[in-house]
Amino acid sequence: GCRIWDADGREYLDFRCASGANLLGYGDPRVERAASLQADLGNTMSGPAPVMIDLAETLVGMVSHADWVLFAKNGTDVTTAALLVARAHTGRRRVLLAENAYHGWAPWSSRARAGIPREEQASRSYFRYNDVDSLNAAAFDAGEDLAAIFVTGYKHYWDACELPTQLFASRCRELCDQTGALLVVDDVFAGFRLARDCSWSIVNVEPDLSCWSKSLANGHALSALLGCNRARDAMSQVLAGGTFWAQAVPMAAALATLAVIRTSSYLEHMARLGQHMGDALKQKARKYGFEIELTGPSQLPHISFNDDPRLGLKFAFAEALLKQGIYMHCLHCIILTAAMNESDIERAVNAAEIAFADMSARRSSIEPSAAVLAFVGMS
Amino acid sequence: GCRIWDADGREYLDFRCASGANLLGYGDPRVERAASLQADLGNTMSGPAPVMIDLAETLVGMVSHADWVLFAKNGTDVTTAALLVARAHTGRRRVLLAENAYHGWAPWSSRARAGIPREEQASRSYFRYNDVDSLNAAAFDAGEDLAAIFVTGYKHYWDACELPTQLFASRCRELCDQTGALLVVDDVFAGFRLARDCSWSIVNVEPDLSCWSKSLANGHALSALLGCNRARDAMSQVLAGGTFWAQAVPMAAALATLAVIRTSSYLEHMARLGQHMGDALKQKARKYGFEIELTGPSQLPHISFNDDPRLGLKFAFAEALLKQGIYMHCLHCIILTAAMNESDIERAVNAAEIAFADMSARRSSIEPSAAVLAFVGMS
Repeated sequence: GCRIWDADGREYLDFRCASGANLLGYGDPRVERAASLQADLGNTMSGPAPVMIDLAETLVGMVSHADWVLFAKNGTDVTTAALLVARAHTGRRRVLLAENAYHGWAPWSSRARAGIPREEQASRSYFRYNDVDSLNAAAFDAGEDLAAIFVTGYKHYWDACELPTQLFASRCRELCDQTGALLVVDDVFAGFRLARDCSWSIVNVEPDLSCWSKSLANGHALSALLGCNRARDAMSQVLAGGTFWAQAVPMAAALATLAVIRTSSYLEHMARLGQHMGDALKQKARKYGFEIELTGPSQLPHISFNDDPRLGLKFAFAEALLKQGIYMHCLHCIILTAAMNESDIERAVNAAEIAFADMSARRSSIEPSAAVLAFVGMS
Repeated sequence: GCRIWDADGREYLDFRCASGANLLGYGDPRVERAASLQADLGNTMSGPAPVMIDLAETLVGMVSHADWVLFAKNGTDVTTAALLVARAHTGRRRVLLAENAYHGWAPWSSRARAGIPREEQASRSYFRYNDVDSLNAAAFDAGEDLAAIFVTGYKHYWDACELPTQLFASRCRELCDQTGALLVVDDVFAGFRLARDCSWSIVNVEPDLSCWSKSLANGHALSALLGCNRARDAMSQVLAGGTFWAQAVPMAAALATLAVIRTSSYLEHMARLGQHMGDALKQKARKYGFEIELTGPSQLPHISFNDDPRLGLKFAFAEALLKQGIYMHCLHCIILTAAMNESDIERAVNAAEIAFADMSARRSSIEPSAAVLAFVGMS
């Protein structure tokens, strides 16, 4: 379901959802039954199982832009494979990335510095998500060396979230069409939480490549790179593989997850619960003298406190909820799972009211967290 | 056990062993029971489970050089993390790699060219495994920019296998001690198939870092980077992570696998079966006019045919065995699992006799495989 327990046995209502892997609920019986049946037939073997074909055909059937699939384990596996495909396809090197976007920990995109030579930076140009002028400037900067534009399904960073604008998404597509570069939608986080297709289907823009993981197999380790026919030759030249990439159990779990995605109202259910929760949180905050902003899609509500430049209120809120058995990330968005119901939301809202009341009483003494400031580069 | 079935239901005695992941037998009940008990408690969650601590402590207890562990999913995850740690620790860039060694598909070490900028090559220097002169030359070439020396547990490539020599291993250690570079043993393939410790324990040389995967959890997706205290600070600065890296089920499976490794004679059993098989194959080959060389450890016997420069005989042998329900890779070594017994070896040896007889009868018409030649760069 939507609960976890700590090492001391304390129960938490979990709005972190395994960083997004928990889409339908921990241990969803429909998914686990399929996984268990496949486990009896085999999992990691000396070759793939027939379920790989079924899953590939299902994904190609569900995701409009896709004609082929590469399966892997991590999100980073498939964002890196997308980079190799784009470079092989174009014979070029430079990639355009949105500022602060996370596409994994591999050196080509990592935000970290330790162990990563400065030369890696030379192959990236940055733009601001949804900012067409900055996108054009980055493309101009890349010039004739542009291999790919990477975008996440929507802008999901700690400071605020934004769905892609039509203008921005269309310009990404147009730039790729004009230059021959490949457009990559990294849907590792957002996949199947915005749409039953690639997330950019909400703005009617088809990428050349899309990256999937997290919720794809409802918690079983699986990722996928989906591509269009134009990129097929390049994919066939690229070397990418792993001992566990053809594991059959996560694929059976993914097939069962996709069946629920296609045939249930899991998405509308999460959006409705998230909308209800967001509205209620705003109202409770105001009651105790706080103004909060809610950004991003309602099923992934992101909270920011007004007048909170050093994130002290946001951290205090997460901390006060944790004490009451509600787990939300102290920076990132709230993640809902389809296994939640109205009473879970009510419990969270009631805990939030207690948190706001407590914060209101000690408002002047609330300090920012040093760890949070270090993480966001404000220390 | 040691059998797989193809899509048409044909059974194979499997000497490929899921590329090495099948150490104790497919579906080993001791491992699967532990995995199943953990699955009831949780697998992919919003935080790690207590089993992560147990597994880390167990590995640090078993592997002499190790003081800490990072868990991941793929072998490539942990070889790449090792690179980042070495670069963060030294502030340098260059890595020494053995010719033809495989350390994963990431751009920094990949043997492939598609999608990989030429600049990546600039940070590598190559030596020949077990060749001290070529190692010294590569270290000289790297000069003051040497970050790490990477070596596999033993030399396992398609042309022949070799255990590390004492002289070579000691010189690797000495070069790292003199320059401050880190010595990395990539035990992703060989781990727990040569020793119950890091593979280089057989030559009494301790690396700074070692990389593990494949057999670590007997087929469950898990990898691990083990490191010494000297590299701890660098590891703590490096960014490396994934949604599934704290999965609890593969860790429970690994704990059960390690218990069997510590308390059974699985290794001596595989070595004895492999020795028996190698001796018998040599004798059967000679009976039909073929001379074969067996190299590498007896539990991972590697076959080469004399007078077979274009690998036609080796491919024909694998093909003739496949027709009889025996699966061996057409280039790489034979991989044994502890689930095999004397009668499995007898069945393989009998099939080999039929293969040699068949090959002898049509010897002059045996052609090399175009796919094999392309793979080894001889096309």
